[in-house]
Amino acid sequence: MQPFELSLTAAADAIRARQLSPVELVDSVLDRIEKVEPHLHAYVTVTAEQARRAALEAANDAAAGRLRSPLHGIPMGLKDLIDVAGATTSASSRVRAGHRAEADSTVAARLSTAGAVLLGKTHTHEFAYGLTTPQTNNAWNRDRIAGGSSGGSAVAVAAGTATFALGTDTGGSIRVPAALNGVVGLKPTYGLVPRTGITSLSWSLDHVGPITRTVEDAALVLSVLAGHDPRDPASPAAPRADYRPGVAGAGADLAGLRVGVPRNYYFDHVDAEVEAAVRHAIDQLQALGAQLVEVEIPMTRYIQATQWGLMVPEATAYHEQTLRTAPELYQADVRILLEAGQLMPAGDYLHAQRARTLMQQAWARLLDDVDVIAAPTVPATAVAADEETITWPDGTVESVSDAFVRLSAPANITGVPSLSVPVGLDAAGLPIGMQLLGRPLEEGVLLRVGHAYEQTQPVRELAPVA
Amino acid sequence: MQPFELSLTAAADAIRARQLSPVELVDSVLDRIEKVEPHLHAYVTVTAEQARRAALEAANDAAAGRLRSPLHGIPMGLKDLIDVAGATTSASSRVRAGHRAEADSTVAARLSTAGAVLLGKTHTHEFAYGLTTPQTNNAWNRDRIAGGSSGGSAVAVAAGTATFALGTDTGGSIRVPAALNGVVGLKPTYGLVPRTGITSLSWSLDHVGPITRTVEDAALVLSVLAGHDPRDPASPAAPRADYRPGVAGAGADLAGLRVGVPRNYYFDHVDAEVEAAVRHAIDQLQALGAQLVEVEIPMTRYIQATQWGLMVPEATAYHEQTLRTAPELYQADVRILLEAGQLMPAGDYLHAQRARTLMQQAWARLLDDVDVIAAPTVPATAVAADEETITWPDGTVESVSDAFVRLSAPANITGVPSLSVPVGLDAAGLPIGMQLLGRPLEEGVLLRVGHAYEQTQPVRELAPVA
Repeated sequence: MQPFELSLTAAADAIRARQLSPVELVDSVLDRIEKVEPHLHAYVTVTAEQARRAALEAANDAAAGRLRSPLHGIPMGLKDLIDVAGATTSASSRVRAGHRAEADSTVAARLSTAGAVLLGKTHTHEFAYGLTTPQTNNAWNRDRIAGGSSGGSAVAVAAGTATFALGTDTGGSIRVPAALNGVVGLKPTYGLVPRTGITSLSWSLDHVGPITRTVEDAALVLSVLAGHDPRDPASPAAPRADYRPGVAGAGADLAGLRVGVPRNYYFDHVDAEVEAAVRHAIDQLQALGAQLVEVEIPMTRYIQATQWGLMVPEATAYHEQTLRTAPELYQADVRILLEAGQLMPAGDYLHAQRARTLMQQAWARLLDDVDVIAAPTVPATAVAADEETITWPDGTVESVSDAFVRLSAPANITGVPSLSVPVGLDAAGLPIGMQLLGRPLEEGVLLRVGHAYEQTQPVRELAPVA
Repeated sequence: MQPFELSLTAAADAIRARQLSPVELVDSVLDRIEKVEPHLHAYVTVTAEQARRAALEAANDAAAGRLRSPLHGIPMGLKDLIDVAGATTSASSRVRAGHRAEADSTVAARLSTAGAVLLGKTHTHEFAYGLTTPQTNNAWNRDRIAGGSSGGSAVAVAAGTATFALGTDTGGSIRVPAALNGVVGLKPTYGLVPRTGITSLSWSLDHVGPITRTVEDAALVLSVLAGHDPRDPASPAAPRADYRPGVAGAGADLAGLRVGVPRNYYFDHVDAEVEAAVRHAIDQLQALGAQLVEVEIPMTRYIQATQWGLMVPEATAYHEQTLRTAPELYQADVRILLEAGQLMPAGDYLHAQRARTLMQQAWARLLDDVDVIAAPTVPATAVAADEETITWPDGTVESVSDAFVRLSAPANITGVPSLSVPVGLDAAGLPIGMQLLGRPLEEGVLLRVGHAYEQTQPVRELAPVA
């Protein structure tokens, strides 16, 4: 096994045991980038020289016994919405040409302090306003979409061109590409990980979180990212916690845990292979001791209107000035959405805000009855790059965007945490994801369940990039 | 002195000492209503028979030594936006003809449990959407406006036709009429007093609170009103507190207290007599030991746009259905404002929301430096009923509404508590109010300062209603 194939946890263990140097690890990942990135286009920029220098410094510190955190010397990619001082934050958009971030985002600063090594910035659907990331190819089949908007981050982690990465998630943008590329994606509780210094899509729905190869890896990254930041108005004053499954709770035994299985919404218009894989994974949770409880998802007919009613005007407000000065620099799909937002009356936004309040209350009651809810992350596996719609067996035609955001949006509207874990491949060899949703600030429960499930499975291998 | 002239505190002391029976007190206030209400029009409805029955019950309980609270047997008026089970909540509007509240609002229920006796429902500017309350006359001069929107409540308390009353405050609607009628008005911290069962004007700015004759009275009422209500999403989980000045802190000595005196905004375009009276009152605070600190009010150029940008679309959203089905039932001034809200783009509302967040942060920093801020409540005393504008000495012409809301709106936008106390009369014999603003949930500090000031003044008499 080469270093680029190691999970974050395994790499950190090897660095701590002095069996692996950060220089070897970073060189291995940079070599991997050189080899497969031409097929993937996961990165906007790779800063190899800076990464090598940082790796050398990390190696010297490690040799001197100074490990800053479990992330010490670990190479990572950051979605190119996340500010790193001195670097361009391109948002994968021509609008940002010449942009240069003056300061680190809170998450970049925390990762830097923790000793992680930045490889480069990964592609996003332009300004995170879409679910495909058209610049990037799926790690498992380059003719398929990466998913989005954090497509570059998910593909890099899946392909071994980053040991972990960060994404952002406004309607599913961490979890969708994680599911479609067979990696783990965590959208934390709204506000838990500060968004200071991250380009906003829709501030009342925006989240930032880790994309990793294992659930344990996600817990390690979350432990570095989480914690109060007074510059993010959504940031709760909650104390920082250690989220590693071994720390957060018991091991693989899920006795006493109540797992909600939706009887509505989450299995409607879902591909048969996706449904089968998720239900099989849920059976595994039961085999681990969990009690399955059928649950009714509330207010489902309001989900789509609420998501769009919040997102569209907030996104437009953020882009107000450049929409006026340089509309031609946006891609057509994004510009149309932004311009549509200029026409939305305040009343529609207010309806969406009120619906969100009611949905949050209804979900709080739902999560009184169960500890987690298990459901598909995305209703289908990665579609071909030129497919714009999905036709369901009953003849319903749904746009790919609508379908891909459908099952992930409720966690953005309500702010509850959601963890996507891989649960196998379909017949075409494309990954399937299951999401676990839980109570606000109970990431530890999701990570414990996800980790317990993962332990029942064979060790996942990297995507078989050609 | 007749019972209707007693402050709440004095009446409660007399009832506790068995020197006064609730029946005597209520009868005295009902007689006063019969005598002066024809000149004032403070009430929409007076439910004398129900009040007499409640007084008799309270008297029997008192005779048996069962006093429910300091409000036991005290007659009150409730602004007619506040639901009382079985009664109409007219909102002083034809739109509400035939409306009947099914359940008590949270505040009505708490007051009822505390033993207060409801006299009737007081006039509001229609649906609280204005600052004059045109149905009602000022208690000090019937040719002058009552102020609003809680004009009926303030006039009733000033004229002795209620021992205390409740108002609501979205841009100043408790404090403006309190100032203009020479009584005490408290707008508590946003959310502290639950709004469940109260007709909304603008939910992100709406507050409910007491209008009383003394600061101590306001503290007694607040102690009954405050406390968590899960049905109001803005309600904090803070524990209920006893706000009486003697309980909340030291007595009349203000040593160590830092009083902010604004160098900008709050004394701009303010009537000279109002300014002189407020500055004189501030000197009294200094004489009591407080340290005066000049402060700069932040972001003042955004106050008006933020207040309107939040209020207009929220008000329209609340009235959406009746605006469609029965627009002709609204008064012209209110209908125009509601219809204007239908045209507001979501982007303008979002700008206002963002400006509010920044203002809250800026005010939090301001209130790091001082304990309270002292300022005029309203820039002028009550104008004549037919005056629509105020002309300032520099020639600036301002609408009465814009002028009257100008100094009170910041506390609605930021949510900080604000207490208006009378600080004398102008040459025309019209009352002047000073507001004290403080940190969120520090009502106790405002009440202590207001009470200390009040102790330096001669006992206030009722308005000299003809």
